[in-house]
Amino acid sequence: MGANTFGNNFTLTTFGESHGEAIGGVIDGCPSGLLIDFNMIEEELQRRKTGTNSAMSQRKESDKVVFLSGIFEGRTLGTPIAFMVRNEDARSSDYENIKDIYRPSHADFTYQQKYGIRDYRGGGRGSARTLLPCVVAGAIAKQILQQHDVEIRSFVTQIGEERSDAFSAEEIVAILNKVKMENDTVGAVVRVEIDNMPVGVGEPHFRKLQAVLAQAMFSINAVKGFEYGEGFHAAAMRGSECNDTFINIDGKIRTRTNYSGGIQGGISNGEKIYFNVAFKPIPTIMQAQKTVNVNGDEVVYDITGRHDVCVVPRVLPVVEAMTAIALVDFIR
Amino acid sequence: MGANTFGNNFTLTTFGESHGEAIGGVIDGCPSGLLIDFNMIEEELQRRKTGTNSAMSQRKESDKVVFLSGIFEGRTLGTPIAFMVRNEDARSSDYENIKDIYRPSHADFTYQQKYGIRDYRGGGRGSARTLLPCVVAGAIAKQILQQHDVEIRSFVTQIGEERSDAFSAEEIVAILNKVKMENDTVGAVVRVEIDNMPVGVGEPHFRKLQAVLAQAMFSINAVKGFEYGEGFHAAAMRGSECNDTFINIDGKIRTRTNYSGGIQGGISNGEKIYFNVAFKPIPTIMQAQKTVNVNGDEVVYDITGRHDVCVVPRVLPVVEAMTAIALVDFIR
Amino acid sequence: MGANTFGNNFTLTTFGESHGEAIGGVIDGCPSGLLIDFNMIEEELQRRKTGTNSAMSQRKESDKVVFLSGIFEGRTLGTPIAFMVRNEDARSSDYENIKDIYRPSHADFTYQQKYGIRDYRGGGRGSARTLLPCVVAGAIAKQILQQHDVEIRSFVTQIGEERSDAFSAEEIVAILNKVKMENDTVGAVVRVEIDNMPVGVGEPHFRKLQAVLAQAMFSINAVKGFEYGEGFHAAAMRGSECNDTFINIDGKIRTRTNYSGGIQGGISNGEKIYFNVAFKPIPTIMQAQKTVNVNGDEVVYDITGRHDVCVVPRVLPVVEAMTAIALVDFIR
Amino acid sequence: MGANTFGNNFTLTTFGESHGEAIGGVIDGCPSGLLIDFNMIEEELQRRKTGTNSAMSQRKESDKVVFLSGIFEGRTLGTPIAFMVRNEDARSSDYENIKDIYRPSHADFTYQQKYGIRDYRGGGRGSARTLLPCVVAGAIAKQILQQHDVEIRSFVTQIGEERSDAFSAEEIVAILNKVKMENDTVGAVVRVEIDNMPVGVGEPHFRKLQAVLAQAMFSINAVKGFEYGEGFHAAAMRGSECNDTFINIDGKIRTRTNYSGGIQGGISNGEKIYFNVAFKPIPTIMQAQKTVNVNGDEVVYDITGRHDVCVVPRVLPVVEAMTAIALVDFIR
Repeated sequence: MGANTFGNNFTLTTFGESHGEAIGGVIDGCPSGLLIDFNMIEEELQRRKTGTNSAMSQRKESDKVVFLSGIFEGRTLGTPIAFMVRNEDARSSDYENIKDIYRPSHADFTYQQKYGIRDYRGGGRGSARTLLPCVVAGAIAKQILQQHDVEIRSFVTQIGEERSDAFSAEEIVAILNKVKMENDTVGAVVRVEIDNMPVGVGEPHFRKLQAVLAQAMFSINAVKGFEYGEGFHAAAMRGSECNDTFINIDGKIRTRTNYSGGIQGGISNGEKIYFNVAFKPIPTIMQAQKTVNVNGDEVVYDITGRHDVCVVPRVLPVVEAMTAIALVDFIR
Repeated sequence: MGANTFGNNFTLTTFGESHGEAIGGVIDGCPSGLLIDFNMIEEELQRRKTGTNSAMSQRKESDKVVFLSGIFEGRTLGTPIAFMVRNEDARSSDYENIKDIYRPSHADFTYQQKYGIRDYRGGGRGSARTLLPCVVAGAIAKQILQQHDVEIRSFVTQIGEERSDAFSAEEIVAILNKVKMENDTVGAVVRVEIDNMPVGVGEPHFRKLQAVLAQAMFSINAVKGFEYGEGFHAAAMRGSECNDTFINIDGKIRTRTNYSGGIQGGISNGEKIYFNVAFKPIPTIMQAQKTVNVNGDEVVYDITGRHDVCVVPRVLPVVEAMTAIALVDFIR
Repeated sequence: MGANTFGNNFTLTTFGESHGEAIGGVIDGCPSGLLIDFNMIEEELQRRKTGTNSAMSQRKESDKVVFLSGIFEGRTLGTPIAFMVRNEDARSSDYENIKDIYRPSHADFTYQQKYGIRDYRGGGRGSARTLLPCVVAGAIAKQILQQHDVEIRSFVTQIGEERSDAFSAEEIVAILNKVKMENDTVGAVVRVEIDNMPVGVGEPHFRKLQAVLAQAMFSINAVKGFEYGEGFHAAAMRGSECNDTFINIDGKIRTRTNYSGGIQGGISNGEKIYFNVAFKPIPTIMQAQKTVNVNGDEVVYDITGRHDVCVVPRVLPVVEAMTAIALVDFIR
Repeated sequence: MGANTFGNNFTLTTFGESHGEAIGGVIDGCPSGLLIDFNMIEEELQRRKTGTNSAMSQRKESDKVVFLSGIFEGRTLGTPIAFMVRNEDARSSDYENIKDIYRPSHADFTYQQKYGIRDYRGGGRGSARTLLPCVVAGAIAKQILQQHDVEIRSFVTQIGEERSDAFSAEEIVAILNKVKMENDTVGAVVRVEIDNMPVGVGEPHFRKLQAVLAQAMFSINAVKGFEYGEGFHAAAMRGSECNDTFINIDGKIRTRTNYSGGIQGGISNGEKIYFNVAFKPIPTIMQAQKTVNVNGDEVVYDITGRHDVCVVPRVLPVVEAMTAIALVDFIR
């Protein structure tokens, strides 16, 4: 299977560099006859769009998705659904100055070493813009999951050293603006909850539900950690403390507690699934940094312009999308 | 691809229930001509074996691995390497009492719901014993990696609430014995370090090195969290703080710091790779627990016998093995 | 793996309906740094283009391929290469009359049964036009194979009841014009030869070189048979007659004869690979045919317009392309 | 996916050399709760067993299959089903004389070139004995298909130059004994028919039903040709002659004729599926043959002992098994 394909049954193959002709994807295995809600897809794209508030970067792109195949008179055909978004605002000359520079904590160096060539414009294939096709496919996956009543929600629970059960949009902007004033960027934690998950989803041995969710999350740029249920905290617990004992509630077998996070033995048990995803700070900061160029000469990398201060809130629809894509592969 | 197969190039397919005829695996894609070090395989098995100290369970099994194919006169043929370990000590009658019980935080309930049938003896396919084939395949993967000078090491850095850079065997036993006295079990964190990793290993978009390592780790029973590089701590950091700037050391491009954990853009950058894996407490505790049986009746689940108190230290060779299997898929 | 993806290492995922927005594909796993010969790709497309002689159909399409990703400054990046061809000349109204009809020996009926919906315009996903992406990917595969000196050639050896070692273009046109005068269509056999194949390509057990070539050929519309080496004729032979004995020619081990067709045990032996592919007549004929509509009513299906009389010669670049794609998956 | 794995949903991974410890396989994706008919598996094995008549070879093996996992109290668990057959009668010393010889039209040469090593005993991984695991998995696949009323039958329709609609066992023995008297071997054609196939099985573009069947058939040793429906004969036909027009029979849409062989556009149409498989003569003949050894020296290869004269009738259960495995992957 290609490295740019995710899933066995509902497969997504993505393509595109940040400033190439287009970015997009091909979904293979979508059930036929699904009436696509195109507005909902646009709304999801809007959620991750550039320039929606002052703490986010200002690249002007319409990000209009065009469907090339697989949909006929508004319904899925059961054949591959290809789609693309044009990269409209690409001025290559803007990137001449970083052409030969390995930006700190970006993928410039590793791509150059692996492939011997790279599209240096805007990070090329390593850009977070390449997650856009995931949002499109995720929106379709969500529409399938809705038919099963499965609901996915995400929250920002940590930005830098500040924590909350769920930051409001205003709180997020306030924190990010502060960081921005200091010409810096900051990390974050996103929490995901999945409700109404049917029992029995997931497969031993290597396609445990948590293993596929983990793979999905680590496919997202800047993700450094994933934990489900009690996660890392479980390491500090005793068995007597964190075992989820079963009870019979009105004829339905449930667990009294849910430290397991809705998954046991790699298979969903019908309780709420929840997990946390940790993101590092965006590596592009508005400060001069020492680095080297392709010749190994030490240089100073300094930029102007406007850039995101944190992956949140724009990464939320991406996280939900990859969650949906992972789930729908099992239960479509 | 089957759910019990891991990898694209060096594939491992595992099989077996805890008390079925045998457990084992098939490796497909192992390079030909490799002189197998069988002693080293036995040593790895010995590391995870039952009964090596008083805090570990006492199942008496020889765990003798038998190779069925793919090796001729001590060398790999390039054809599938099948191997198995007989399950010798299985007394089914011992399990009559749990036949109809859903043990708390075990996979009994989810297996029953998913498949409508399960081998209840010793946890069946959900048993940690099913990781034994990973150790065998991992030992072979390590032998391949040795030819590339890649070295994998693992340490216990947390048991319950106690932390260390690396607990000694004596320290581990001491802590576990204390927990055992309280008839309880406890969680742990294992840290893995990979040295001499070549640059350029890993592939965007969905086979990022960290995504494949995460899938590998979450295939191991009881794993609840995975983080690499600074991991969850990165969420609390600033970009100016955690960016790894490049330097030229004697003509070799390196990073001054290694917050990235040796991976950038999903591809190894030649620095040390390190990650942490969190384990929950083993759910089998020596205390009476309330639960339900298959009919939904509330019952008390109470056991005698000897059981492990913690996944460490026995899980260390498993963690290393899955790491080796994940890596060798990329660099064989 | 999705049903519209071919290959493990050099994977091609295709998409598109005959009269949807576009048809195209995504290649994942193409080596980086390859300088693409775009003219050669256009030439291959030209070879299969509509309307190049009087016995072929007259759909006017530019068939201009647009590359969306994976190529930078003319060279491959090692990232997915997406490409598409717009479907320009689609007048849906032309297809209103066949909207509800199951055309004989077309895929209308089976698609409707399988998916409950179909794009009836021009055969939708079942159209031979969906092979165009194979030609684009095949042209790139050929460019990779050229670096290994591997050469693929194809010949028309049978049209209807007429046979030849290799019909000339003029002979083909003459035969097809005769069939066309009779408002009929006709089958054909194509022979493929592969020269300079390296020894050792192909893998037991299920990826034998012949098995992958067969899968590739049967992915082409209208193919009804595949044979390699002596093929069906081998069934009539004696072992003493068709065994290929080995000889030493100037230090190189060769076979005296090549009844095996260059493959032994699923692996290339360095001799010429050759195989034959049988095509049925194109089912669209200029004669009234009885059939049924979607309601099961018997109706007469009669068409006007210009249609191909035979898959050859336009299918030749498709056959070569799928051959190249199959080979490059092994030896890139 | 490994080269020794077939299928996406019902996957079979095979292993084993002819004279290694054992041969066997692992089935992943078998539905749970299936009551296995072990007698039927033994009967299928018996059908392909050595030594059942005078024209067949006399290797004495019990070919007793042992199931290692995935079955509990006679029913499938939904977990991997591993099984093996010991290779009992292996005397390596018998093969010393061919250790260094490249037998004509065997895989000795290509294996040696590809892997640099081979198990020369009895053809190693290239032996027809490696098809035995297919028979076991095929028997289970057949038991699943039976629940869908799908029936697979096979006939010998050609041996050497003699043809029939379906030779009887006696006729086959008579022909083969004649060939055996001449110390020679001979090719054959097997015809397969599948009844009660549901409509809608198969998937465009690269998993067309015929493409998967072709891959399955060419995985069998000695297969040189595959054709379905009218096959190669279709090349000689006119469209007006071989189109299958639709009719409504008692409310069910059928085709008047079935030149298509039950598959249209890669998808089953509910009519009988039929195809032919051509086999070359077995290369091991009781005559002296010139060949070369591993050093390139010309030598004479001459054998004694008893060997099969033709792949039929023993290959029939193998052909049916691979057919069943291919089908069950789609319709389990």
